[in-house]
Amino acid sequence: MKLMKLSVLFMTFILAAQVYGQKHSSTPPEVSPMPMKPEMTEIWEPEVRVVTPGKKLGDPPSDAIILFDGSNLDQWVSQKDPSKPAPWKIVDNDHFEVVPGSGGISTKMKFGDCQFHIEFSAPDKVEGESQGRGNSGVFFQNRYELQILDSYNNRTYRNGQAGSIYKDHAPLVNAMRSPLEWNTYDVIYRAPRFKENGELDTKATITVLHNGVLIQNNVDINGITYYIGLHNYPEAHGEDVISLQDHGNKTQFRNIWIRRL
Amino acid sequence: MKLMKLSVLFMTFILAAQVYGQKHSSTPPEVSPMPMKPEMTEIWEPEVRVVTPGKKLGDPPSDAIILFDGSNLDQWVSQKDPSKPAPWKIVDNDHFEVVPGSGGISTKMKFGDCQFHIEFSAPDKVEGESQGRGNSGVFFQNRYELQILDSYNNRTYRNGQAGSIYKDHAPLVNAMRSPLEWNTYDVIYRAPRFKENGELDTKATITVLHNGVLIQNNVDINGITYYIGLHNYPEAHGEDVISLQDHGNKTQFRNIWIRRL
Amino acid sequence: MKLMKLSVLFMTFILAAQVYGQKHSSTPPEVSPMPMKPEMTEIWEPEVRVVTPGKKLGDPPSDAIILFDGSNLDQWVSQKDPSKPAPWKIVDNDHFEVVPGSGGISTKMKFGDCQFHIEFSAPDKVEGESQGRGNSGVFFQNRYELQILDSYNNRTYRNGQAGSIYKDHAPLVNAMRSPLEWNTYDVIYRAPRFKENGELDTKATITVLHNGVLIQNNVDINGITYYIGLHNYPEAHGEDVISLQDHGNKTQFRNIWIRRL
Amino acid sequence: MKLMKLSVLFMTFILAAQVYGQKHSSTPPEVSPMPMKPEMTEIWEPEVRVVTPGKKLGDPPSDAIILFDGSNLDQWVSQKDPSKPAPWKIVDNDHFEVVPGSGGISTKMKFGDCQFHIEFSAPDKVEGESQGRGNSGVFFQNRYELQILDSYNNRTYRNGQAGSIYKDHAPLVNAMRSPLEWNTYDVIYRAPRFKENGELDTKATITVLHNGVLIQNNVDINGITYYIGLHNYPEAHGEDVISLQDHGNKTQFRNIWIRRL
Repeated sequence: MKLMKLSVLFMTFILAAQVYGQKHSSTPPEVSPMPMKPEMTEIWEPEVRVVTPGKKLGDPPSDAIILFDGSNLDQWVSQKDPSKPAPWKIVDNDHFEVVPGSGGISTKMKFGDCQFHIEFSAPDKVEGESQGRGNSGVFFQNRYELQILDSYNNRTYRNGQAGSIYKDHAPLVNAMRSPLEWNTYDVIYRAPRFKENGELDTKATITVLHNGVLIQNNVDINGITYYIGLHNYPEAHGEDVISLQDHGNKTQFRNIWIRRL
Repeated sequence: MKLMKLSVLFMTFILAAQVYGQKHSSTPPEVSPMPMKPEMTEIWEPEVRVVTPGKKLGDPPSDAIILFDGSNLDQWVSQKDPSKPAPWKIVDNDHFEVVPGSGGISTKMKFGDCQFHIEFSAPDKVEGESQGRGNSGVFFQNRYELQILDSYNNRTYRNGQAGSIYKDHAPLVNAMRSPLEWNTYDVIYRAPRFKENGELDTKATITVLHNGVLIQNNVDINGITYYIGLHNYPEAHGEDVISLQDHGNKTQFRNIWIRRL
Repeated sequence: MKLMKLSVLFMTFILAAQVYGQKHSSTPPEVSPMPMKPEMTEIWEPEVRVVTPGKKLGDPPSDAIILFDGSNLDQWVSQKDPSKPAPWKIVDNDHFEVVPGSGGISTKMKFGDCQFHIEFSAPDKVEGESQGRGNSGVFFQNRYELQILDSYNNRTYRNGQAGSIYKDHAPLVNAMRSPLEWNTYDVIYRAPRFKENGELDTKATITVLHNGVLIQNNVDINGITYYIGLHNYPEAHGEDVISLQDHGNKTQFRNIWIRRL
Repeated sequence: MKLMKLSVLFMTFILAAQVYGQKHSSTPPEVSPMPMKPEMTEIWEPEVRVVTPGKKLGDPPSDAIILFDGSNLDQWVSQKDPSKPAPWKIVDNDHFEVVPGSGGISTKMKFGDCQFHIEFSAPDKVEGESQGRGNSGVFFQNRYELQILDSYNNRTYRNGQAGSIYKDHAPLVNAMRSPLEWNTYDVIYRAPRFKENGELDTKATITVLHNGVLIQNNVDINGITYYIGLHNYPEAHGEDVISLQDHGNKTQFRNIWIRRL
């Protein structure tokens, strides 16, 4: 009885395979003498976790940690003295602004691999030029800088403009909006790996979309961001805070969230 | 005279380095006995190309090729017979819909490495289950399938649900919206490379954001998508069309654009 | 005065650069507006550790752990019961031989990334065919098999012959010697990495030279070696023993050493 | 009847799987609901090409191109003027020696990906220090230098000693023999890939064994070897000659062969 059922089932598989096979790509050429059945390459376990996406692109999904939603800077502290609150200014319950000279700010929580979303706008009043205009930056693991700059009609060295991995990789294109508009960075960041003896195992990598346009395509990050000299990975480290740089310009920020990967 | 100026310039550099150095990360430990100057790691040429981003996330940037904007299917042909127009139906000058049984559709143009954006919605009326519900797919280079399915409250094998590289990689999470809503895929696709003798050199890779949520993180694509058996790269190929699958369900599509990388 | 000296020094650098530049490749095109000096890309620290190589190729260098030098099996235990000695037979104080039916043997020590050297010879008397002739194998981390087989005039499936990563990667070429001769495998093995949550981070990779001929070129190992079905990485693990397989044939082994990487 | 046979066959498979499963690793956990049979993962075609290895390690295998076997320099030309013969000196029908001041030599044939073997010895009479002692180098594709130096009891900058990718990667260890002995380099070289628009696609990579000891482990080569400044890939190129450097020292060479990969 059971065998009969098995045979019927088997025939069904063969037929199904033929029908579906036409809809999908054709079956492979002779790679194995004994053909498989479709079910042999179906993986059911474990079930994929459900995440509710944000209402529109850029909104945080259900599993994101909200780092800033307009209301407060509770997720941030002073970079100079992490025991003190973040010294920057919230505006209109909507965004916050660098207070020049107050120093950078850092997340309270530490992160490694992550999907990160941030929105920023250069100061409304255009002043300065090259690196002097709208300069700030996102430091992943407090070390590796994704540059923020007002790169709208503002030439500087290519590996120092908005969207560059500072002094490491120029962005693929310049997708910067004007200082009166908001920009987004959507980042997929992979932390560096270190061996037990402290040596680098694999470099950090980063992919960045700037206003939805790909500007960094899974590039290696060649080490800690230095203003002078070659970048390197001088010592092992684990998860660390994300910092925003005070470079003396009133850059604005809003809608910051992160997902651990 | 010139020397005096040089020395002043030099002092300025040193001072500038010290000031800026504090704002950025500190200078590296002893990696080279002779220190550099900041300008030595500034790359100015060539200037980075400007791209105007779309008005909001999901909108095509200025250098995108528009594959569908609601008006017509002029960029598409019948997959079965590329000399014939795409046999699917435009609705409300807004989106188009699979005409079940008419066969898939393909782009007229061929593509390799690309950033690709597409929006899709499962049929409004929920029918069937598992692979039978809202099934379609995007075939990069007419071979490698990013699965489209109604995976909202619809369990199937994990490597066959929405956002999977079909029978290759399950999505990291299930970020599917309900059939009454629109979904987005934002894809960074790298084509496989082949050697002159036809052998595979490097596999294709893919990164996918589903409704803004990372679901494929730079994974290798292990070969042509087969319904039965192991995937492989049986022969070399160049750029090729992108196809959308007719799997018998009235899946809807809108706002499709692509950027060559 | 100092300035004068500086300028002379500077001229000397420029001249030196020109002279040396001719001996090496030419200097780069305009990548940075301010040229470097040669010393700026010289890294002196830390000094590179000295290793005394073996007398001839195949001999163990000074930092190798000797796993077998002809004298004893003290570095090995029974795979079935690691509390028991390795049940295989030393011959002529030169090599050892599988004792069919006694089970595999494993190293006492555990290893991860390594450079590994082993010599082996198929049974002198040729019996059986395909997988039945001279079958054994090296299991890195007790899981990932580099196949040993008598592949001299003995056809089998390509991903199961000598030098294959069993049922994963066929060797690039068949460099097997006759059963009356000794073969060498020189292996560069990189262990898989796992995330803290137990998921695979990066696959193991392997490079193999068979009798000095490259047969595996830094390929990914796709998971635990299974005789049936698809390979995978079901769970995280650390360093583990290296095992040699008892597959019922009297394969011979000698000169086994390993360097931790 | 057929069904009965099928069921018997099926039982046989199950049993076989159990028996073989013990000899190999165990079967995988629940990755697919329908188990495979062993034959389904056996790939038979195409048959792997046979190569006869050299008699001992270091000897050229049957598919190698012999670049020097002691008899003549017919495979080499002057680097300065490729229309002229290689200006170096053959000694004792065994090896050849740099003629300082005559310029480098290059292969007549061009190569890309390859397995490369070379033997070299520093000048017998020890003179000079640091970069001045026994300096030469192998330039893959006439651009990327694997350094040759007398690094036996001769400190220099780590990324410039024997076995370094010059001013790019220091060797993992210093496995240099004395000037009265011969050294071997066994190299696995992968050429850089370029896109059609001339941009770099993937960097070159290299693995080097120095006297059988791993000194470069599949590292990226970061561009053309420059004596001054940062290395880069300024333009696309195809296969190219391999050159040996005249750096003013009487370095000796013998037994050079290459296999295209």
